[in-house]
Amino acid sequence: MTKDVPEQGSFSAKDYHDPPPAPFIDPAELTKWSFYRALIAEFIATLLFLYITVLTVIGYKSTTDPKLNADQCGGVGILGIAWAFGGMIFVLVYCTAGISGGHINPAVTFGLFLARKVSLIRAVMYMVAQCLGAICGVGLVKAFNKSLYNRYGGGANELADGYNTGTGLGAEIIGTFVLVYTVFSATDPKRSARDSHVPVLAPLPIGFAVFMVHLATIPITGTGINPARSLGAAVIYNKDKAWDDQWIFWVGPFVGAAIAAFYHQFILRAGAVKALGSFRSSTHV
Amino acid sequence: MTKDVPEQGSFSAKDYHDPPPAPFIDPAELTKWSFYRALIAEFIATLLFLYITVLTVIGYKSTTDPKLNADQCGGVGILGIAWAFGGMIFVLVYCTAGISGGHINPAVTFGLFLARKVSLIRAVMYMVAQCLGAICGVGLVKAFNKSLYNRYGGGANELADGYNTGTGLGAEIIGTFVLVYTVFSATDPKRSARDSHVPVLAPLPIGFAVFMVHLATIPITGTGINPARSLGAAVIYNKDKAWDDQWIFWVGPFVGAAIAAFYHQFILRAGAVKALGSFRSSTHV
Amino acid sequence: MTKDVPEQGSFSAKDYHDPPPAPFIDPAELTKWSFYRALIAEFIATLLFLYITVLTVIGYKSTTDPKLNADQCGGVGILGIAWAFGGMIFVLVYCTAGISGGHINPAVTFGLFLARKVSLIRAVMYMVAQCLGAICGVGLVKAFNKSLYNRYGGGANELADGYNTGTGLGAEIIGTFVLVYTVFSATDPKRSARDSHVPVLAPLPIGFAVFMVHLATIPITGTGINPARSLGAAVIYNKDKAWDDQWIFWVGPFVGAAIAAFYHQFILRAGAVKALGSFRSSTHV
Amino acid sequence: MTKDVPEQGSFSAKDYHDPPPAPFIDPAELTKWSFYRALIAEFIATLLFLYITVLTVIGYKSTTDPKLNADQCGGVGILGIAWAFGGMIFVLVYCTAGISGGHINPAVTFGLFLARKVSLIRAVMYMVAQCLGAICGVGLVKAFNKSLYNRYGGGANELADGYNTGTGLGAEIIGTFVLVYTVFSATDPKRSARDSHVPVLAPLPIGFAVFMVHLATIPITGTGINPARSLGAAVIYNKDKAWDDQWIFWVGPFVGAAIAAFYHQFILRAGAVKALGSFRSSTHV
Repeated sequence: MTKDVPEQGSFSAKDYHDPPPAPFIDPAELTKWSFYRALIAEFIATLLFLYITVLTVIGYKSTTDPKLNADQCGGVGILGIAWAFGGMIFVLVYCTAGISGGHINPAVTFGLFLARKVSLIRAVMYMVAQCLGAICGVGLVKAFNKSLYNRYGGGANELADGYNTGTGLGAEIIGTFVLVYTVFSATDPKRSARDSHVPVLAPLPIGFAVFMVHLATIPITGTGINPARSLGAAVIYNKDKAWDDQWIFWVGPFVGAAIAAFYHQFILRAGAVKALGSFRSSTHV
Repeated sequence: MTKDVPEQGSFSAKDYHDPPPAPFIDPAELTKWSFYRALIAEFIATLLFLYITVLTVIGYKSTTDPKLNADQCGGVGILGIAWAFGGMIFVLVYCTAGISGGHINPAVTFGLFLARKVSLIRAVMYMVAQCLGAICGVGLVKAFNKSLYNRYGGGANELADGYNTGTGLGAEIIGTFVLVYTVFSATDPKRSARDSHVPVLAPLPIGFAVFMVHLATIPITGTGINPARSLGAAVIYNKDKAWDDQWIFWVGPFVGAAIAAFYHQFILRAGAVKALGSFRSSTHV
Repeated sequence: MTKDVPEQGSFSAKDYHDPPPAPFIDPAELTKWSFYRALIAEFIATLLFLYITVLTVIGYKSTTDPKLNADQCGGVGILGIAWAFGGMIFVLVYCTAGISGGHINPAVTFGLFLARKVSLIRAVMYMVAQCLGAICGVGLVKAFNKSLYNRYGGGANELADGYNTGTGLGAEIIGTFVLVYTVFSATDPKRSARDSHVPVLAPLPIGFAVFMVHLATIPITGTGINPARSLGAAVIYNKDKAWDDQWIFWVGPFVGAAIAAFYHQFILRAGAVKALGSFRSSTHV
Repeated sequence: MTKDVPEQGSFSAKDYHDPPPAPFIDPAELTKWSFYRALIAEFIATLLFLYITVLTVIGYKSTTDPKLNADQCGGVGILGIAWAFGGMIFVLVYCTAGISGGHINPAVTFGLFLARKVSLIRAVMYMVAQCLGAICGVGLVKAFNKSLYNRYGGGANELADGYNTGTGLGAEIIGTFVLVYTVFSATDPKRSARDSHVPVLAPLPIGFAVFMVHLATIPITGTGINPARSLGAAVIYNKDKAWDDQWIFWVGPFVGAAIAAFYHQFILRAGAVKALGSFRSSTHV
């Protein structure tokens, strides 16, 4: 994959410019309609995300329950559930990227805040909007069919039997690292290094990253990697086990996002800055 | 995902222009061959959509019937059915976008009409073409194997046992909202707001939106979110239950499409207009 | 989806030009290395297509055989088989589009020949290369494990029990229509009609079209829609039933491709030519 | 698919230039931070690749074990495992293409080295980084749950019962050929030959190629086509059978990559060079 495609002419491709770091607190933001619009978009997107995915989980478990139904093979399976999570992120990032940046996940917001891509105020307000949206989305699923919702676990994240806390935390950290690393890579303004040919379809790999992590860790934690998703399900399901494990689904994703931000900003990008001299003399390699 | 990619140069990217609203009634349209060609394209696309998807449903149920066949696991499952619906929408929107706009769904047409993207005459004629196409598509499946078609439910949308009317209606409203919201996002002429990097592959997220909604709501209503699809199956299957529930699959999608049009035009876009002053002074954020 | 995106500037977008029809017989072609290279590419691509797909079919049936193995659910299922066919077409069209046009299917070649996109000589030689490649690809699978290959049907296309010849033929005709219609749409030089925003990722919808048709018609005919695929399996499997039904898998795809070529050239495109006057006066709609 | 889309204007499209061959040994490389950064990126990407994929394999086998669990149908199946491998390659090639070229596989590095796209030093160091990353990735999975890891085969590549060594070797050779051929096609600087319209989404077909090969050959060898993946699992699993078959998963992929490099450089591209005269006189075909 060793090829350089200067997509719009080598001039503009070469001298990319990083946007300046977002201010820590930017009062001007609060006076703009676009800020509140972004909050609404994050709220609606997280609501739709939880609605579709938890409904898929409950529907799968109810259609394949061996006590009720002989057809154990007809359901969407863990593969279908993983698709629901990954596919919704693809669709919703696509839809909201131009409005709010398409976070839909407090861990993503936290990672971008650490990288100084969003201000503190924006980060906090996004997280509030995401958590409220998640609660409403799961609430809708429960309102649709309360008995099925409670019988089949409410879509809550819990540590599975046979795995200890450290494993659960590790799975959440690495899973969120995969997601946030993909987010940073997909939105990196530096595109002119050698071999880059992939800027246009950012939401697709982000959705696939979510899909992949769900395939791997649903048997361990049910896969959080999104604190709003875990909180929303815990609030509506409201059983002890879901609350006891809840901290894993906040600490894990935030640590994973922080490592990803560090990896991208200090290893991959800072290196780029330091090496700028050597790059300038060999841009055609 | 906080990055701004001016894809064709910042000038053209900045001053996007919305097309003027479509006239309510545009007699000139009726004199153009391109109008009738669009009707033919909608008819054929909806026919192919129903043909492939209902054939998948019937084939799945017949290959995994425990009365006839020991191999209950070989079929495509609900996951495969969801792929059939979503994948066909991806393919057909891709194929017909340049000819008719690629609606293939009266709810989408209704949403775009409310947003003044198509005229009333075009909207009505599209819906007629879509419904006729759907009837012919399901008719083909029945013609292929009448006994299998009738035995396995004819692909008709019906409320599943254990869900009440309100739930079915709610599932259709939110499901159609997801689809039409994605359609509006994917075709929004305003692309230069901060963080937008996703215009080129519109049909893929639209297809995925359909895929997602099917994963979640097949256990509840069989998933309509497309009145032509529900009508076509009801006309050919022609059983009481399918007709009794039919209104859900018209009211639900139309309400969902209306809410999506409202959300996009009044919340997301009107805000953009109001905020234009504040944007102009900070286009490089 | 009612939006017009002039991707490279409205001038070049407006006055697209159709390439002139390919000559019926073009002796100059035979003197170019690029012609023979294209034949090699078609041979190799069809070989790989059959190798991967038939190996998937045999592997699926052997891993889930209830006589040998209790795990009936572990196999890839019809969904996995459909992915193998569709996914390989995506990959191989992507790889060979720049070398040979990426046909990998005599029905596609036939459709493009009818539309005067390739010369007669090129069409015939492509079909020969495709058939030889298909035979070699299936031969490899048989060489890997002869007993499994014969026991599990050899990947041959046969009409399933309970479907009559007319149904099989109809399924092949419509299935190939879906594929060749997508090919024509994806490669149409006319991209500036209203609402077109989809040119860049042609191989993906083509692969999805193949995926979709397999989901729907594997239970009926095993899905041919590619005479080279059906011939290759029949030659290596060499059982009466596969040969008796073989004509369906040539007549069906060729008729379907012809209808798609007619639909695209005479309904969708000829209309464009006739309506050019009306378009010129309203290019901004 | 017979269409020519000059994407950026016919001038730049026509006179593409191949980059000069990479030097055999390039000491200057060793003085650049970007070289070490690329090694880190390959290490991390291969670690994540093995972590997610082997975790998916172990999780699948543990959730569907008939001795422990009645629900044999709930797991992701071979289809889900194939998605995990293919999807991770898509995501990781997308993420690392701009940093290291996105190899994540010694066979890919070897093929690109043979084609003189990377220097000998870079190739060797990449392979070392990939193997170390793979070992660490599988080690993480074992650390998560040692008993499950050992009970369910450790994700190691082994020849399945009923297939002889030659078949296993053949499957690895052809599988790797499919992958490396796709890599060469996706990154080919020559894009202006007739019918090319597909440059932008290189990582997607590469990921799909991996997905396809896994669908076909998991029942035979578990699918290696990546010596780092096979080595990492063998080192951590450390059972005789995995070590006895290990050579197959090095010789096969390297031979397959060499054939793909030969095919691309000498058949497809050298032909292009020879035919340049004939092309120049007919660039508008």
